[in-house]
Amino acid sequence: MIYDISMSIDKNMKVYKNKAEKIPKLEFTKSHEKDNMCESRIILEMHTGTHLDAPYHMLNEGKTIDEINLDTLVTDCRVIDLSHIKEKITKIDLEDFHIKKNEFILFKTSNSSNLLFNPNFVYLDKSGAEYLLKCGVIGIGTDGLGIERSQKNHETHKILLGNDINIIEGLDLKDIEEGIYKLIALPLKIKGAEASPVRAILIKE
Amino acid sequence: MIYDISMSIDKNMKVYKNKAEKIPKLEFTKSHEKDNMCESRIILEMHTGTHLDAPYHMLNEGKTIDEINLDTLVTDCRVIDLSHIKEKITKIDLEDFHIKKNEFILFKTSNSSNLLFNPNFVYLDKSGAEYLLKCGVIGIGTDGLGIERSQKNHETHKILLGNDINIIEGLDLKDIEEGIYKLIALPLKIKGAEASPVRAILIKE
Ligand SMILES: [Zn+2]
Ligand SMILES: [Zn+2]
Repeated sequence: MIYDISMSIDKNMKVYKNKAEKIPKLEFTKSHEKDNMCESRIILEMHTGTHLDAPYHMLNEGKTIDEINLDTLVTDCRVIDLSHIKEKITKIDLEDFHIKKNEFILFKTSNSSNLLFNPNFVYLDKSGAEYLLKCGVIGIGTDGLGIERSQKNHETHKILLGNDINIIEGLDLKDIEEGIYKLIALPLKIKGAEASPVRAILIKE
Repeated sequence: MIYDISMSIDKNMKVYKNKAEKIPKLEFTKSHEKDNMCESRIILEMHTGTHLDAPYHMLNEGKTIDEINLDTLVTDCRVIDLSHIKEKITKIDLEDFHIKKNEFILFKTSNSSNLLFNPNFVYLDKSGAEYLLKCGVIGIGTDGLGIERSQKNHETHKILLGNDINIIEGLDLKDIEEGIYKLIALPLKIKGAEASPVRAILIKE
């Protein structure tokens, strides 16, 4: 059974801070009416919709998206339910889950049910990021459009990306139950980019 | 073991007929120098690089890329070696392979070793497409930038897409040996589009 956990990429989608430039544009260069077939191009910000951040997003010397090890993106993962959290995910919220080395953790929060952009979306704070690093996770996914918001110096991003821990942002987990799944979330091989849209899915066997 | 069979998306990549508008543009909107982090956007034609065609590409009433059944894109596949073929793949070339119902077939041809665009790339002709339809395949992948070239009325595309058979174009199979693999080639969920770039991989267990 495949569960699609990706946002639809379209002009009505939820984008960060509702900024107009973050709305994707699909332009048809050939059309059925005139050409008997159609072709299009897209203008897409890398952090719009469901996407993977590469270390280069935050670190000038970090890996770019085409350099990410794909083994860590076709892997077992665990969805944990944090729907009760109102503001931020901290170390204390995570300790109960007994997170182990090499786990890939997806946070299901109240963000998944917000159709509009909420400036106060649930995020992962510094204590939570440090705790996950100590646990030895290989990746984190969130249903927020960002893994953090307005934190000074992007601490959460830097703790994770500085240790080559994958960050997937913009997941849609509203129909997904807590549990273990196989995750597939492969970035496009865009040379030199700091992130890429991904079609993320979960498989339950 | 994961084999990456996707083309790199960059300004030096091979594009159809070497058309300038088919070269992707990566634009940085924030940079490490000025912003202490970076962000980019891409302008990308859907048929540039490794991509999946949806029926809507050729058929006005066909499925768009966001409507494709993902089960058919996380699946077993078979790479067949057609490197000896000089011009086109016909029914006769395919018969020896005993292709069965529900197979996903990838053609490894001399296209994979061409770094520059070759206007005479190896393609699948009408007799080959009709034969594959009769076999009952669920998908075809090619290492050409198109599954056909300059055929009147896009016969090959229409035979396959008209029967909801997946077409992946622009694969890089030069390092891949004939055999059975697991294929993953998921399109972005771009609403209303006729195609999408994919990060295609093969897994050998
Ligand atoms: Zn991001
Ligand atoms: Zn195409």
